[in-house]
Amino acid sequence: MRVSEMNSMQVEDYLRGDDRCVVPLGSTEQHAQLSLSVDSILSERVAAEAAEPLGVPVFPVVAYGITPYFKAFPGTLSLRVETYVALVRDLLDGLALAGFRRILLCNGHGGNAPAASLGLQWVADNPGCRVRFHNWWNAPATWAKVQQIDTLGSHASWMENFPWTRLANVAAPEGRKPMIDLGTLRLQPPAEVRQRLGDGNFGGVYRHPDEQMLALWEVAVAETRALIEGPWA
Amino acid sequence: MRVSEMNSMQVEDYLRGDDRCVVPLGSTEQHAQLSLSVDSILSERVAAEAAEPLGVPVFPVVAYGITPYFKAFPGTLSLRVETYVALVRDLLDGLALAGFRRILLCNGHGGNAPAASLGLQWVADNPGCRVRFHNWWNAPATWAKVQQIDTLGSHASWMENFPWTRLANVAAPEGRKPMIDLGTLRLQPPAEVRQRLGDGNFGGVYRHPDEQMLALWEVAVAETRALIEGPWA
Amino acid sequence: MRVSEMNSMQVEDYLRGDDRCVVPLGSTEQHAQLSLSVDSILSERVAAEAAEPLGVPVFPVVAYGITPYFKAFPGTLSLRVETYVALVRDLLDGLALAGFRRILLCNGHGGNAPAASLGLQWVADNPGCRVRFHNWWNAPATWAKVQQIDTLGSHASWMENFPWTRLANVAAPEGRKPMIDLGTLRLQPPAEVRQRLGDGNFGGVYRHPDEQMLALWEVAVAETRALIEGPWA
Amino acid sequence: MRVSEMNSMQVEDYLRGDDRCVVPLGSTEQHAQLSLSVDSILSERVAAEAAEPLGVPVFPVVAYGITPYFKAFPGTLSLRVETYVALVRDLLDGLALAGFRRILLCNGHGGNAPAASLGLQWVADNPGCRVRFHNWWNAPATWAKVQQIDTLGSHASWMENFPWTRLANVAAPEGRKPMIDLGTLRLQPPAEVRQRLGDGNFGGVYRHPDEQMLALWEVAVAETRALIEGPWA
Amino acid sequence: MRVSEMNSMQVEDYLRGDDRCVVPLGSTEQHAQLSLSVDSILSERVAAEAAEPLGVPVFPVVAYGITPYFKAFPGTLSLRVETYVALVRDLLDGLALAGFRRILLCNGHGGNAPAASLGLQWVADNPGCRVRFHNWWNAPATWAKVQQIDTLGSHASWMENFPWTRLANVAAPEGRKPMIDLGTLRLQPPAEVRQRLGDGNFGGVYRHPDEQMLALWEVAVAETRALIEGPWA
Amino acid sequence: MRVSEMNSMQVEDYLRGDDRCVVPLGSTEQHAQLSLSVDSILSERVAAEAAEPLGVPVFPVVAYGITPYFKAFPGTLSLRVETYVALVRDLLDGLALAGFRRILLCNGHGGNAPAASLGLQWVADNPGCRVRFHNWWNAPATWAKVQQIDTLGSHASWMENFPWTRLANVAAPEGRKPMIDLGTLRLQPPAEVRQRLGDGNFGGVYRHPDEQMLALWEVAVAETRALIEGPWA
Repeated sequence: MRVSEMNSMQVEDYLRGDDRCVVPLGSTEQHAQLSLSVDSILSERVAAEAAEPLGVPVFPVVAYGITPYFKAFPGTLSLRVETYVALVRDLLDGLALAGFRRILLCNGHGGNAPAASLGLQWVADNPGCRVRFHNWWNAPATWAKVQQIDTLGSHASWMENFPWTRLANVAAPEGRKPMIDLGTLRLQPPAEVRQRLGDGNFGGVYRHPDEQMLALWEVAVAETRALIEGPWA
Repeated sequence: MRVSEMNSMQVEDYLRGDDRCVVPLGSTEQHAQLSLSVDSILSERVAAEAAEPLGVPVFPVVAYGITPYFKAFPGTLSLRVETYVALVRDLLDGLALAGFRRILLCNGHGGNAPAASLGLQWVADNPGCRVRFHNWWNAPATWAKVQQIDTLGSHASWMENFPWTRLANVAAPEGRKPMIDLGTLRLQPPAEVRQRLGDGNFGGVYRHPDEQMLALWEVAVAETRALIEGPWA
Repeated sequence: MRVSEMNSMQVEDYLRGDDRCVVPLGSTEQHAQLSLSVDSILSERVAAEAAEPLGVPVFPVVAYGITPYFKAFPGTLSLRVETYVALVRDLLDGLALAGFRRILLCNGHGGNAPAASLGLQWVADNPGCRVRFHNWWNAPATWAKVQQIDTLGSHASWMENFPWTRLANVAAPEGRKPMIDLGTLRLQPPAEVRQRLGDGNFGGVYRHPDEQMLALWEVAVAETRALIEGPWA
Repeated sequence: MRVSEMNSMQVEDYLRGDDRCVVPLGSTEQHAQLSLSVDSILSERVAAEAAEPLGVPVFPVVAYGITPYFKAFPGTLSLRVETYVALVRDLLDGLALAGFRRILLCNGHGGNAPAASLGLQWVADNPGCRVRFHNWWNAPATWAKVQQIDTLGSHASWMENFPWTRLANVAAPEGRKPMIDLGTLRLQPPAEVRQRLGDGNFGGVYRHPDEQMLALWEVAVAETRALIEGPWA
Repeated sequence: MRVSEMNSMQVEDYLRGDDRCVVPLGSTEQHAQLSLSVDSILSERVAAEAAEPLGVPVFPVVAYGITPYFKAFPGTLSLRVETYVALVRDLLDGLALAGFRRILLCNGHGGNAPAASLGLQWVADNPGCRVRFHNWWNAPATWAKVQQIDTLGSHASWMENFPWTRLANVAAPEGRKPMIDLGTLRLQPPAEVRQRLGDGNFGGVYRHPDEQMLALWEVAVAETRALIEGPWA
Repeated sequence: MRVSEMNSMQVEDYLRGDDRCVVPLGSTEQHAQLSLSVDSILSERVAAEAAEPLGVPVFPVVAYGITPYFKAFPGTLSLRVETYVALVRDLLDGLALAGFRRILLCNGHGGNAPAASLGLQWVADNPGCRVRFHNWWNAPATWAKVQQIDTLGSHASWMENFPWTRLANVAAPEGRKPMIDLGTLRLQPPAEVRQRLGDGNFGGVYRHPDEQMLALWEVAVAETRALIEGPWA
């Protein structure tokens, strides 16, 4: 259940019987023709759908993440690593204070990985709590499904093109973009990253039929739900 | 226009002709019977409606703010002042890098005031930019309208009870709660704040007819729009 | 009593019977023709006079505050928000360690407002303590007295021109400066702020007779004393 | 060439003709029967051997990393994420100031991943420089060689047992430890991690013949050398 | 000249012909029977008297320093090292912005030494500026004079007992306290430090005749003045 | 015993019977003709030799310190004061968690002095622990021995020229360099420091016979050992 659709009394009631919750981690960054909020939309939505039948609360998505390499694409905003780590710590501290003990960080953006490091550090300081850092899109079952649909899927390609991430009046390009060399990309400053990436897609076609996308989505929701269910070690 | 409904090319197009944008600042905190996201919902929505006819982009709401006094109300999450200041600085740095020069921080939560201080500091370091910190709910025209409807309005009372902040299946209580003494409240630690506040409303009735609320909303949207229009000094 | 006129044994004696203290918060910043230390002088003095008959210790003024907008006026020094917040936290931590439980931050400069935010956060982390943030010059009774004397009073105008803040051999200008538009001022970078402000006075005449100033001072001392007396919630 | 075997004049000479360098990133943490410095020893040595024929300077290893999960194993010391990020930034700043432009972070410990995030951020702020973050032990060729020797290799197992990481008078245990479930491990606080891990090996036999280890080493040195050679994008 | 007795126009005038200034660094900490502000009083006063005939501005004393070992003496407040370093940096940044280029940090408390480290770092980042860190009480000539008066002088003994640091109605004890072992003291936590120190004096008699004290003071003022005069390298 | 030659079980065994350890603090910075790692080599070696007969563990040297003034000498890397303080705190926190209670920081570089300040602060926060900050090269007995050999010894002169710090194929210059004026040096930015220092030696001859050096070394090892033995207050 989305915390934005709950009040404090309802959260308190919930905590009498359970101690799990989900915090979606997103990003505001270029996704080629798709919404700048792809990572926020998807992490929040997969979390919400996964948690819904379990009645586990899903907090509002953290809409900004770590994405320095996309800084030359206007509309992208990147938090510094140290800011992001402080932000996630404050959220975890607040959750623990309220009584949450099993926390899923449902992450939608690879660049947010320092939140996983922080999570491990925070659990060492808060040994009564558990934090699971979950990259929803490349967890085993979901990634297998991606590969089954099309072995070439990447940032801003078809695999992020869902009915809820594409923009009205913006058509997906035709053609299959060759995969970018990621090793090289990670060496380059933002202006060169942009020049190399063109529209922002890392590689692959821009769209697959919604039927396939919904099948992929189902896998992701199920896999995320299974992690919420546990075990939690 | 919401940035979540734009892609990077569209932001770049926009920046060729304008340099304004809006960043809504929210909070996830108790609002009595209302949504825990009241401050996020309202700041983002008022910004979006105000900016829409101007074509000015509205970035995703910062859903977490500074709200230590509500920590004893489960579901509330508070960022530390130093974290929040770092977060807002990173956002401003990113906006300036992209080419934005006139930035409205559309704030929905009084506790976020250090963002105003940071804004002044940041402009001193970035003299080509302008930052306007705007508390949408108590700006002059909006507050006058609040007072016209009911002189007693406060946190979590009727004045935050809009069709888009109230929860399905949660009825607004009857009765007019007397105003809390704010000076005393600011002295108290969270557990005592909670005890004193009861359901979280600071004072006033819990609901006024939607007709009045929509009239209030219109004033707030218009006042926010005027600030986006400028002048920007 | 000023802590600078006490030794540690005397503070210890005091703490056997009371747990209140005052920390004045000042600033070193332009005040037109007046001393650059106006905010420090006034906050420390009003605190000392208020506390004297109560025997409550007044710590040395924090002589530097947050004042980025005045950076183009030489002699002004501004701390960053994050530095200031860290500074105030360290002081509060030290006071609590010594046994103080009720702490008045007697503030002389509007820009120091993040200390109020920090105070709320600190009390949430130190629930046995109370922190009251007090802007001495615009507390209700003092502000009413200001208005009674002259409805136009502002930064660096007559209302800060006391026998103990004016400089020897510097005459107060004649004339009544029109009030600056504060909304515009808050948008401008330091160089423009300076250009707009001229000598630094925000608006109003530069001097009222000392008789009136002493009457104002009496109100401020009495109001500050009342806050030290309590109640403390 | 090791910087510890150079003086400043020699570094200056080198910089007249080249701008590459290597900084090894290690850790001081439990490695079962092996040295607590395994990650430092290996990252520094593989870097030194790889760089030697190229004449590229290798700075002293950063001997402490991020390893909170091993905190219950005495002798382990973990830096906080924010400290580590600040440390690596200072080193990169210093290297750039001296004239280095292509920097290989040769990492020996998975937990140090936030240095990769920082590297991307730093390059965005220093677009004339390149930073390559290289996990020497699981780079493609090296990992393939590991798998060729034994498909079960992990932290503190045979794959870290080199003549230069094993301790005098400490025998490698017999037997093949089953692989630990990493997903579960990442959920657990340090005391439980220790209980689950026993001696600290994550899984696999404790030793393979040195002939095989030296063959593995050769692959790692060659692969690391190739990255120093470039291309650097 | 004290900045508290100047306004911004006067500082600006001064900067047309000179670029030197002094920032006194004090502390609020136990000094046995003497004022808790000894270090602030003396550093500010020696600076002011030294600078007066030169017309060099002396900023308000930083009244709080680093003094963790005295935390068990009530009335002592200690800033954390990282806070203090941030504070001094902000002041230096502000001075440089205003046009000061030669800055004397006139320090009155040994524990503030990290300000000297920060000063060196800051000059490396601001190569057009000079920062001199000056411990006024143990500079060569002053210390020689101390030794000439009495070879046993220390924290809170006679050598800090000036007419302007002793308290009304508090008599100096008789007797010559043996010198504390400083090496041991530096190992102890605050409660043990207090137990060992008793009244706080580190060693020596509590008072010498004012004639001698004024002679010492003259030496200190002259030595400080000479440093302000330069050369500044 | 060097921790790099121990495993976690051995550290745990040790902690059953003792709670002392040593952390050497080094630096990577110019030392004229000598190794850039002089301060790391010497602090780690003196610690290891001192601790060896006592069986006290010596952790890996912190190879980077605070040395901004040498930034213009390539190969020098300097950590910011705030980074260094955070780093040392993390190490102390980790040592305390493991059960160490008496910690010797064996320092090889004068610029690392803020670690001493941090140590005092940390002990105030961890009153069950003891931290001794030891500058091995200028401790009383060692410095007396230096003076006995040659009254002019300094940074990068003969007194740091040991068989284990000089470089193969780099001859020590002839001649006795006059001592640099340290007061002036501390005022200068890095480029001027370099110009003034020439090869980096602060003053003195470049080499004394190894017989004398080994005699000096013996004194340093003995003095360091005595501090490890205690008393620890």
